Amino acid sequence: MDISALLTSAGINIAICVVLLSLYSVLRKQPSNLCVYFTRKYVAEPVMRSDPFCLERFVPSASWIMRAWQATDEEVLSVGGLDAVVFMRVVVFSIRVFIIAAMICIFLVLPINYYGQEMQHKQIHAESFEVFTIGNVKEASKWLWAHCLALYVISCSACVLLYFEYKSITKMRLAHITGSPPNASHFTVLVRGIPWSPDHSYSDSVEKFFSTYYPASYVSHQMVYRTGTVERLMKDAEMMYRKLKTAEPQRAGSSMPCCICGGSTHSFKILKNEAESVKSKTSVDVLQPNHREKECPAAFVFFRTRYAAVVAAQVLQSPNPMLWVTELAPEPHDVYWSNLSIPYKQVWLRKITILLGAIVFMVLFIAPVTVVQGLTQLDQLSHTFPFLKGILKKKYVNQVVTGYLPSVVLMLFMYAVPPTMMLFSTMEGNISRSERKRSACIKVLNFTIWNVFFGNVLSGSIIRQLNVFSSVRDIPVQLAKAVPTQATFFTTYVLTSGWASLACELIQLFPLLCNVFRKFILRTREEPSSWALTFPYHTEIPRLLLFGLIGFTCSVLAPLILPFLLAYFFLAFLVYRNQILHVYITKYQSGGQFWPIVHNTTIFSMVLTQIIALGVFGIKKSPVASGFTIPLIFLTLLFNEYCRKRFSPVFRRSPAQVLIEMDRQDEQCGRIEEIYSQLKAAYNSPLPTDSHSQDPSTSGSRRSNQDQESSRDPESLKPGSLRCGKVMPTTEQSGRICEKCQSSIVLPRASPREI
Amino acid sequence: MDISALLTSAGINIAICVVLLSLYSVLRKQPSNLCVYFTRKYVAEPVMRSDPFCLERFVPSASWIMRAWQATDEEVLSVGGLDAVVFMRVVVFSIRVFIIAAMICIFLVLPINYYGQEMQHKQIHAESFEVFTIGNVKEASKWLWAHCLALYVISCSACVLLYFEYKSITKMRLAHITGSPPNASHFTVLVRGIPWSPDHSYSDSVEKFFSTYYPASYVSHQMVYRTGTVERLMKDAEMMYRKLKTAEPQRAGSSMPCCICGGSTHSFKILKNEAESVKSKTSVDVLQPNHREKECPAAFVFFRTRYAAVVAAQVLQSPNPMLWVTELAPEPHDVYWSNLSIPYKQVWLRKITILLGAIVFMVLFIAPVTVVQGLTQLDQLSHTFPFLKGILKKKYVNQVVTGYLPSVVLMLFMYAVPPTMMLFSTMEGNISRSERKRSACIKVLNFTIWNVFFGNVLSGSIIRQLNVFSSVRDIPVQLAKAVPTQATFFTTYVLTSGWASLACELIQLFPLLCNVFRKFILRTREEPSSWALTFPYHTEIPRLLLFGLIGFTCSVLAPLILPFLLAYFFLAFLVYRNQILHVYITKYQSGGQFWPIVHNTTIFSMVLTQIIALGVFGIKKSPVASGFTIPLIFLTLLFNEYCRKRFSPVFRRSPAQVLIEMDRQDEQCGRIEEIYSQLKAAYNSPLPTDSHSQDPSTSGSRRSNQDQESSRDPESLKPGSLRCGKVMPTTEQSGRICEKCQSSIVLPRASPREI
Repeated sequence: MDISALLTSAGINIAICVVLLSLYSVLRKQPSNLCVYFTRKYVAEPVMRSDPFCLERFVPSASWIMRAWQATDEEVLSVGGLDAVVFMRVVVFSIRVFIIAAMICIFLVLPINYYGQEMQHKQIHAESFEVFTIGNVKEASKWLWAHCLALYVISCSACVLLYFEYKSITKMRLAHITGSPPNASHFTVLVRGIPWSPDHSYSDSVEKFFSTYYPASYVSHQMVYRTGTVERLMKDAEMMYRKLKTAEPQRAGSSMPCCICGGSTHSFKILKNEAESVKSKTSVDVLQPNHREKECPAAFVFFRTRYAAVVAAQVLQSPNPMLWVTELAPEPHDVYWSNLSIPYKQVWLRKITILLGAIVFMVLFIAPVTVVQGLTQLDQLSHTFPFLKGILKKKYVNQVVTGYLPSVVLMLFMYAVPPTMMLFSTMEGNISRSERKRSACIKVLNFTIWNVFFGNVLSGSIIRQLNVFSSVRDIPVQLAKAVPTQATFFTTYVLTSGWASLACELIQLFPLLCNVFRKFILRTREEPSSWALTFPYHTEIPRLLLFGLIGFTCSVLAPLILPFLLAYFFLAFLVYRNQILHVYITKYQSGGQFWPIVHNTTIFSMVLTQIIALGVFGIKKSPVASGFTIPLIFLTLLFNEYCRKRFSPVFRRSPAQVLIEMDRQDEQCGRIEEIYSQLKAAYNSPLPTDSHSQDPSTSGSRRSNQDQESSRDPESLKPGSLRCGKVMPTTEQSGRICEKCQSSIVLPRASPREI
Repeated sequence: MDISALLTSAGINIAICVVLLSLYSVLRKQPSNLCVYFTRKYVAEPVMRSDPFCLERFVPSASWIMRAWQATDEEVLSVGGLDAVVFMRVVVFSIRVFIIAAMICIFLVLPINYYGQEMQHKQIHAESFEVFTIGNVKEASKWLWAHCLALYVISCSACVLLYFEYKSITKMRLAHITGSPPNASHFTVLVRGIPWSPDHSYSDSVEKFFSTYYPASYVSHQMVYRTGTVERLMKDAEMMYRKLKTAEPQRAGSSMPCCICGGSTHSFKILKNEAESVKSKTSVDVLQPNHREKECPAAFVFFRTRYAAVVAAQVLQSPNPMLWVTELAPEPHDVYWSNLSIPYKQVWLRKITILLGAIVFMVLFIAPVTVVQGLTQLDQLSHTFPFLKGILKKKYVNQVVTGYLPSVVLMLFMYAVPPTMMLFSTMEGNISRSERKRSACIKVLNFTIWNVFFGNVLSGSIIRQLNVFSSVRDIPVQLAKAVPTQATFFTTYVLTSGWASLACELIQLFPLLCNVFRKFILRTREEPSSWALTFPYHTEIPRLLLFGLIGFTCSVLAPLILPFLLAYFFLAFLVYRNQILHVYITKYQSGGQFWPIVHNTTIFSMVLTQIIALGVFGIKKSPVASGFTIPLIFLTLLFNEYCRKRFSPVFRRSPAQVLIEMDRQDEQCGRIEEIYSQLKAAYNSPLPTDSHSQDPSTSGSRRSNQDQESSRDPESLKPGSLRCGKVMPTTEQSGRICEKCQSSIVLPRASPREI
């Protein structure tokens, strides 16, 4: 591909982006799209603005860019939680690193590449892209020290930046723990693998165990119940009803006086009477005798202090490590109920099976990638399909096909991946939504790196024989041969997949179409929160990291990619900030757990870059440059090891010192009793007869707390597991007052992209 | 090599073994060798028997075999501790597995191999060894299912046996924890990475931290002190004195009224006055002002209950994971004092450096192995050195050189490895002797498997180019080609290195010579315990596991090795039992920590066997057998994963349930006060002015406890760190009454093979 083809591609993409951004700036001003582009605000306060029909609404503007630019980190933190801040730090880190990389590579490396061989240079726009890559430097050139120096500068600055990011995010995580108001999850431990006994129920076993071994700190516990047939039928009936209901919709936000016992709670009055009647039947007559049989060998155990909970969670309880397995409970909103009933003994087997499944999926996916990759090599294509020769000879077709089509096809294929990986992570048995998302993020990331990066790098030359990784010693050389030649593809990939994906993200095509369909064709008004989404970290973090990987590996070899990449990251900064501030809601948080993934991947990218550079220096016969690269690899790995020791334990375990201080503060403030009373109802309520947490004295202390983040996925409302789920009022959580039982209840809302 | 050469080798080795065993049975009856062959008993009760000079003393007998055979596991446990039992379980496990393997391989596989090809069979003794290996089965033979079946039977029985062994050893470990009398290490946490503060000493920081965060359970603490110059000089002077002293030796066992402050305590009266005078100078005048500067950022912290200690050890203390690093303290005798003063921040760097060092050592060692391997291929040798042709043509020389010499040379080289690895493990910063030995065991094991097994398997054919592992896909085929051809070498290796090493182990050549030299040439009588050794697990476990690996990999391919291997393991059973019962003393224990190493290595051996079989079946073009082998690999790995989940956490962390029960029992028995009083003095005494553990009220409760296990290495007696070391009387520990300070003191004794 020559520069003009690249510029054509860039032109097309810039045009598309400008059009889409303008379209966005118009669409967001339409009151009917309020629930698409300002979902956060709309869920909190679902009032339709009745703006006058004025021309201004149809003029594109850049005000959203200003707003996104001016927002502070504190704003992002308060709106999107720590995970959103971490995500934005990834973007900022990438911008910083690639500014440094662009400076050194464009001013030092690029001229060396361009004048690397004595040749007649054409006009710039007719010049081949390869002239700007390291491929153009002649063998045993004296100037390869510049590439080596650039590699050192990039690696060192990346390490320094990574260190300070890790440090500040660790601080933020600690502040997130200490700064949050008394949170039920801090006091609660999830116990799994409760041993079965013919004499007692699981509940009795739990009570006996913890009152024996933790007499001073054990408060009470809450069993997890299996979904029974009646509940499942109830739920199905409800679902049907929800789907069919076309009666005038209730305005959300008012109190929802409904509580189906044995089923999830829902926000429609019309079911009330039926539900009541069912309740009196099921809960008292039918469920009562089966009560014990419905218990799962899992329970939430509440402790008197945070420290006691963390001790119970971190200590090995039983001589049989498969029994009495404890871990800190996820926040009430974060619990993934349906996985709680999975026997703990199965979990390891599920994890292994899913791992194998994910690997098989990853490997089989290589087929479409190889086909796509064929498109960049037109000669081969026209050789295979001779009838295409005529069409492909046209210059315009040639440019579109080589510069644009492969990435688009790849992008479409890639859309199927995150839902699959999310499904895998669900089946894996993760007990919290944030953990499930984190696990899916890792899977998508591995998938992306393998299929997009290695698939593309190697398929053009070797991977057809799947041979490269079977020969360990040759990897650097093979990669060194392949990466510079694929730099063209990666540049177009940044232009198409990168820029276009940001524009698509901004315009929210799918929700927009749904909204239009619902408003103008179905003419229904569903609850606003049913389409409120949480931020899709599991798709966006792998995307950012993939571009980071491409940027690192190509920076020294083909520096021309860096301006495009920087443009992508700048745009990403604005777009994601805007989306976090306006579109996505925060139902649950992982507390910065995504950063270690980012850190490890960045280190991987750097080491891979260094290995590729090693191969290139080897090919170019520059022993000095190779010799200097090897210690760099060791130093990078050493740096990673240091960070792993210094920071990562805080992401796995909560430090006792911090929690003890918090406990003492609570004690001084006299908040303890209040916390206890809230604690017992924070997780799902039990069956009415369960004495351990059905404490009538506690229901009086509930506060109503209406905010936009109260929505839940349908899975969270396993009928048996959530009964009139009382929610502790914390920052991220809220409930609404249930008129019947005087306690705040949670509203279930389906969120289509949650899985 | 043909069968007659093999039988020659076996004959030589059997003869050597019989001679050595007979020699042993004579030597052990000589009273002058009592301290060599009955070291345990001699250390406990160093009385020279004055047997009459009778003929019976010079007649070989097999009584020791009967004695070793009749000893029970309880006896081994009480004498050698849990580690000895674990070691004997390894031998028993190997015997069981290889009996099963021998049964199926000799009665099913061997005939199939022998009649695998239509050929004229010679007389058995002139038959080549290769005729009995799988190499003799013709391609695409229908009979390969028998090999596959044998593989299944061996793998399944090994897994079943492994499971029950792991289960029973886990139980034994728990019994070891619960069954032991109140042990200081259960109540003690070692804290490292104490932050430096300009205002307080480290000691004040520790007191402040633990009394703030563990007010209910913190008892006191004990700082670790750096060795000062004065102490070092003192120690050197002592060492010199010890070496030069020829005066009439004191009888050990009587009370040793000596206590050098600022140095280690020694069992000779002659130093008493000098030591006293030095003490008054150094400890009060010189050491006092430097007291704070000598503190290391490490301390032993004592807790009120075992549970509190285990909580403090398992919980992450500080938001900075490099500070306040806690772990359960090793037993007082087990502490490796000189490593305690290593700053915790260095430890990770040391570990990485040592890892790299060990890898380099492992790789460089391949040179001598390759040379040795050349000896088995005489044609090549005589081709390289034409002048040898004449000698090598002689049949006898040929047989000795191919059958015997390579293993002997290899064995001699291997003697240098364990001390090197022990040195590496010392430099790594391990804080306990048992952990150091465990770490050395892992290093020696990796080294042995790589150099002896892979070095030999691959050097004959390919490794000269170090190429095999660079091509991942070809590994099974390459191994499948190499292992059967090397089966001859492994068989002779079992005969020479295996049998001979057991005979050498029994005869204790080095201590015997030392004893003779000392008694008859120097005519001195040193303390008996100075040559008392602990069991060299770090050399013997890798040896057993190497033979296990050889057995597994060769069983199906070359079943003729199994009888020799079984003979080795039977002999090992007798020899090691004898040695544990009579020779080695037990200074410290790891509590069964060696078993996970054994388990993992056995799984590795099995998977490697299966991979090799896969390669062989591929070469033999038997898709059915290959197809059935692949699931076997997965099942084996799955089994390993299950064991890892089910058993191994107990080897890493102590279960809370067990410790709480123990605490309650102590409380019921009213032992608590006694334990506290002992606790404060269990680890090294502090400088006289340190108030935290110099509790005068406690010294009255010391008991004198004289047994054979009181000896210590010189390293344990860092002058600054052990001052009049008071020892808690536990089963494995003892002390002697120090007349001066009325507290039990520890006798230092050099043990030459400790490092």
